[in-house]
Amino acid sequence: MIGNLDFAGALERVRPHAWRTPIVPLDLEGAPPAFMKLESLQHTGSFKVRGAANRLHRLAGPEREAGVIAASSGNHGRAVAVVAARMGVPATICVPDWVDPSKLRAIRATGARVVLAGPSYDEAEERAAALARSAGMSLVHAFDDPDVIEGQGTLGVELARQAPDIREVMLPLSGGGLAAGVGLALRDRRIRVVAVSARRARVMFRSLERGRPIELPDEETIASALSGGIGLDNRLTLELCRRVISEHVIVEESDIRSAVGRAFREHRLVVEGGGAVGLAALWSGRYRPRGPVAVIVSGGNVDRSLLKTVVTGG
Amino acid sequence: MIGNLDFAGALERVRPHAWRTPIVPLDLEGAPPAFMKLESLQHTGSFKVRGAANRLHRLAGPEREAGVIAASSGNHGRAVAVVAARMGVPATICVPDWVDPSKLRAIRATGARVVLAGPSYDEAEERAAALARSAGMSLVHAFDDPDVIEGQGTLGVELARQAPDIREVMLPLSGGGLAAGVGLALRDRRIRVVAVSARRARVMFRSLERGRPIELPDEETIASALSGGIGLDNRLTLELCRRVISEHVIVEESDIRSAVGRAFREHRLVVEGGGAVGLAALWSGRYRPRGPVAVIVSGGNVDRSLLKTVVTGG
Repeated sequence: MIGNLDFAGALERVRPHAWRTPIVPLDLEGAPPAFMKLESLQHTGSFKVRGAANRLHRLAGPEREAGVIAASSGNHGRAVAVVAARMGVPATICVPDWVDPSKLRAIRATGARVVLAGPSYDEAEERAAALARSAGMSLVHAFDDPDVIEGQGTLGVELARQAPDIREVMLPLSGGGLAAGVGLALRDRRIRVVAVSARRARVMFRSLERGRPIELPDEETIASALSGGIGLDNRLTLELCRRVISEHVIVEESDIRSAVGRAFREHRLVVEGGGAVGLAALWSGRYRPRGPVAVIVSGGNVDRSLLKTVVTGG
Repeated sequence: MIGNLDFAGALERVRPHAWRTPIVPLDLEGAPPAFMKLESLQHTGSFKVRGAANRLHRLAGPEREAGVIAASSGNHGRAVAVVAARMGVPATICVPDWVDPSKLRAIRATGARVVLAGPSYDEAEERAAALARSAGMSLVHAFDDPDVIEGQGTLGVELARQAPDIREVMLPLSGGGLAAGVGLALRDRRIRVVAVSARRARVMFRSLERGRPIELPDEETIASALSGGIGLDNRLTLELCRRVISEHVIVEESDIRSAVGRAFREHRLVVEGGGAVGLAALWSGRYRPRGPVAVIVSGGNVDRSLLKTVVTGG
């Protein structure tokens, strides 16, 4: 279903566009050693720039001229817009109406065209697919694309070099691009992949339970980056997630909200809800690591109004 | 005036107590490459744990039993309290009444005894010196101590390994322990030390101008970590700062406040005022680097009420 992916090669392609983000220790009293991989300090504020850079790198000359289009709840769109601007490729980003305002501002700041596509992520996807066809633009899917999966996997390659002794990696699960990429990149290292879903953004989790892609209505969640379906015509990530994920954890809104606040107060880190689900799983006690673990803190693009309530303890 | 300092040895002594903090790129359009050294992500929220660990490591058995005492505007006290608690050494911390509440809470959480010493940093110093004499405790000076200077210099050793091509380092200047330590640690590398003082905490700057230690009244500043005198009986840091500092920059309150907000919004970093003066010097245009530069972001222990005004753009 997917050819041989070359994660080390992807890391070289991605490197000009994505920083090697730091890891820092995370003290979990009485538990095995733990680290945070801080993609929240990535220059675009999330890991998504890795997949976008690897995908755009493959575009041929005429495709670059025709431009790219992406659907996104924000972070993928920002990543595509930033990489496209740096490559001189025109970009159009379709977002749901509930997109985080800070993400929307960041996308617009690149000069990309923005399409507010309606009240759901799936509508943004449909609009992007239709515009891609009618205008001849290359669609850069947020997760169900081998180049994007390969690009996200570069995070796993980096992590294995930075923390070679980890036995587990915890990562947020949404469309499955990060889980599939990191899982495949680490498959020869006997590192357990623990996927964490937000209760209100659990389409992949339920699809894995059912063994086929399902749809669920979008629910409002503090982890908005994880919202959206996996596509009823999912080609890659459902099957890859089935193969690479060892364990699933579901976290609640209150767990995530607490984790965003605690990351901020105790670790001086600005983390968005979707980026904090791994920390939420640990700090809520819903998951207890069995060995040295790295938690991927996947993004930090959180809106000021939300942070204000977190800062003030609301 | 000061024996040979062994920074590489100090790094080994300090390592069990102080993380190797990350560096991340800082994009200054059109300027040479720049990095931030994020001591704000140190587990105690500032670099001060380095000097405290190196100093406490030297204590003999009876000194450990008698305990340690320190005067501090917060970060040094927290560092001493944390290291002392881990070593099983009783600690007393004297702070001025205006100590940041988050720092005070963190000190108390270690079990250390706290003495609110009055309205100025110098009173905290006097109280600590008096209590040290009367109770036989070891005084851990915040800056004017060779072991503390050597410990802070470990930050320079780390930085030179992480970013071997830098030609300049920008750091906050207060009592001079960080500047002296980092400057001495890097002296053979032809790296220019650019010291940044807050206008309202410029005792060392004025003392260097005069060529002798002077006193100034404490002024309220967003960079409270930099407040306090250098001691009219300064033994080490004034002379060492005179030797190692290549250039001085003064930043204003508004520069610092803007930098705290911008670090937060654009870089997803929680930085305290005193830790942000280097960024303030760059972003205000008051300093333009001539070559590849590292900015030491020295601390992130900022009170929630201040951050709230920053987050809300106040």
